[in-house]
Amino acid sequence: MDHSSLGEFELIARLTQGLHSRADVALGVGDDCALLELGGDLQLLATCDSQVEGVHFTLQTARPEQIGRKALAVNISDIAAMGGVPRYALISLILPQQIAIETLEGIYRGLQQEAERYELSLVGGNIASSHGSKQLIIDITLLGTIERGRALLRSGAEVGDLLCITGQPGSSAAGLYTLFHPDQPYDATALISVQATHHTPEPRVSAGRLLSRFSPQQVTAALDVSDGLSGDLQHLCERSHVGALVEQAKLPISQHLFAIAQAARRDPFAWILHGGEDYELLFTLKPSAQQEVLKALWAETGTPVSVIGAILPESEGLRIRLLDGREEALRAQSWDHLRQS
Amino acid sequence: MDHSSLGEFELIARLTQGLHSRADVALGVGDDCALLELGGDLQLLATCDSQVEGVHFTLQTARPEQIGRKALAVNISDIAAMGGVPRYALISLILPQQIAIETLEGIYRGLQQEAERYELSLVGGNIASSHGSKQLIIDITLLGTIERGRALLRSGAEVGDLLCITGQPGSSAAGLYTLFHPDQPYDATALISVQATHHTPEPRVSAGRLLSRFSPQQVTAALDVSDGLSGDLQHLCERSHVGALVEQAKLPISQHLFAIAQAARRDPFAWILHGGEDYELLFTLKPSAQQEVLKALWAETGTPVSVIGAILPESEGLRIRLLDGREEALRAQSWDHLRQS
Repeated sequence: MDHSSLGEFELIARLTQGLHSRADVALGVGDDCALLELGGDLQLLATCDSQVEGVHFTLQTARPEQIGRKALAVNISDIAAMGGVPRYALISLILPQQIAIETLEGIYRGLQQEAERYELSLVGGNIASSHGSKQLIIDITLLGTIERGRALLRSGAEVGDLLCITGQPGSSAAGLYTLFHPDQPYDATALISVQATHHTPEPRVSAGRLLSRFSPQQVTAALDVSDGLSGDLQHLCERSHVGALVEQAKLPISQHLFAIAQAARRDPFAWILHGGEDYELLFTLKPSAQQEVLKALWAETGTPVSVIGAILPESEGLRIRLLDGREEALRAQSWDHLRQS
Repeated sequence: MDHSSLGEFELIARLTQGLHSRADVALGVGDDCALLELGGDLQLLATCDSQVEGVHFTLQTARPEQIGRKALAVNISDIAAMGGVPRYALISLILPQQIAIETLEGIYRGLQQEAERYELSLVGGNIASSHGSKQLIIDITLLGTIERGRALLRSGAEVGDLLCITGQPGSSAAGLYTLFHPDQPYDATALISVQATHHTPEPRVSAGRLLSRFSPQQVTAALDVSDGLSGDLQHLCERSHVGALVEQAKLPISQHLFAIAQAARRDPFAWILHGGEDYELLFTLKPSAQQEVLKALWAETGTPVSVIGAILPESEGLRIRLLDGREEALRAQSWDHLRQS
């Protein structure tokens, strides 16, 4: 059987089934990060993610510095989603047959800029050559720490919890669209805004840290939106064994996204619901904690949050209440790059 | 400038120059692992290494289980070289356009076997597709722990120290040779032995652990032989700012390696001195500690060790005393896969 008959998540599930972890692993495969025990007051968070030329980036549509920044940012976001502090990055490069040293230096400048911005260190790495290949691959492992028992997991959502999202998702997908459809009458400011989100997303580290201060009885589950709101909501629901209702009328839509969608004659809600790579945090909380949590997020970190729905029993699946009041199934359209191939 | 005008180590040096680490990084780029501070009694070791199809392995010359085992073993060896305990592995796969799921399952079986053998956990990972590419890439980050201040570094060797190596290096290179030159009258037992070393090297974890019990005034420096004895000796000397003399007459040569060399009409010393991927430990110690350290290594871990030379002032460079008593410069012939391309 060829691997491409399976999606990424099915393939991971198949390969990692039956793995048994030792007692010093609090949480293995299946969340944003692994959660590891080292015996001190802190638990270790570990995550890895790779960016492949031609799949996740191209040197034609992004500068090397942007590619470096984003490659680190997507990993920082996984630490943010667990509520942790990003601390140490290992950078593994797989080089194509030919690449200019200046390109690699630019990527490293971007990595270093992002590391400084989030106060973490680049501590090691590896460089290999793929000889025959034409693609540059940047594979990053990021380590972070979290106070014992404070990690935000995907698995704690319960029926009746409120479903919340930070910021205004969809901008990255809109930015990507404009890169491949440049000849449309976009508003200049809106264009800069959505392309910036696409090229250099800002992981929600301070929001994640704040959420981790609350108990798991207040903030019940969280993950970052990398594959798309609908797809990542599905991941959260699977791990928590619940369903969810999203209310379209409550989805946050930015002025810039709306302007780009109008110029492109596209449905902005498709980008909001299914566009990946925004790196906003999707989380659930108890209604009783709503005021305290959202107020603290805004006052202490300046993070806007929208309550976009609620958690339902698992049997309900994923649902959406449309603008006209009708309800229907919400089809998760995760960006699964294995299936796209 | 194209990257291939630089070797791997020059490229790493160029890309990582000017990186500044924070106070919680005891040791960043430049040794077998990064050494990180988490505040408890243990320090964290972190290393990553990738195996690229067609460069480090082929599916024609190795079984998937062997490829998986070795991909993990080369990382375990980096932890062993610092004296640490391997604990957590993150597996990042970059898939080619087409690969059988059974091959991936075989690789995961090998990873899991090796993890069980060394009592570590596979805790996470990532799967990406490279679309156009024909190569499978296995990139692994391995985390370990070491008691505070006990890590074996490359940088502590001093003039007059003895130069030691575990086991009998050269077998992996001999094994690789036989895979590409199968039609020669090899002794069957010798053939199995050298190919086994090539396919499934056994990192020296227990030897590294034992060496880490001694003080840095006794065991002064260590690293693992991945690139070849001469090349890795050069790395040790560069980091310690010393030179070294290797005595050819003291190089350990196994019966099997000798038999393969005879059948192949090759110089066994070329494999011993310059063959990579043995994953033996090369280390230096004070002459006063020789008896105690080597006796403990043998008695407690069954590790054979040879004293193969001594540390010289940096101005002497790398030298070798040949079997006939003549001395000459020892040219480090590191396996640099970037330059080979």
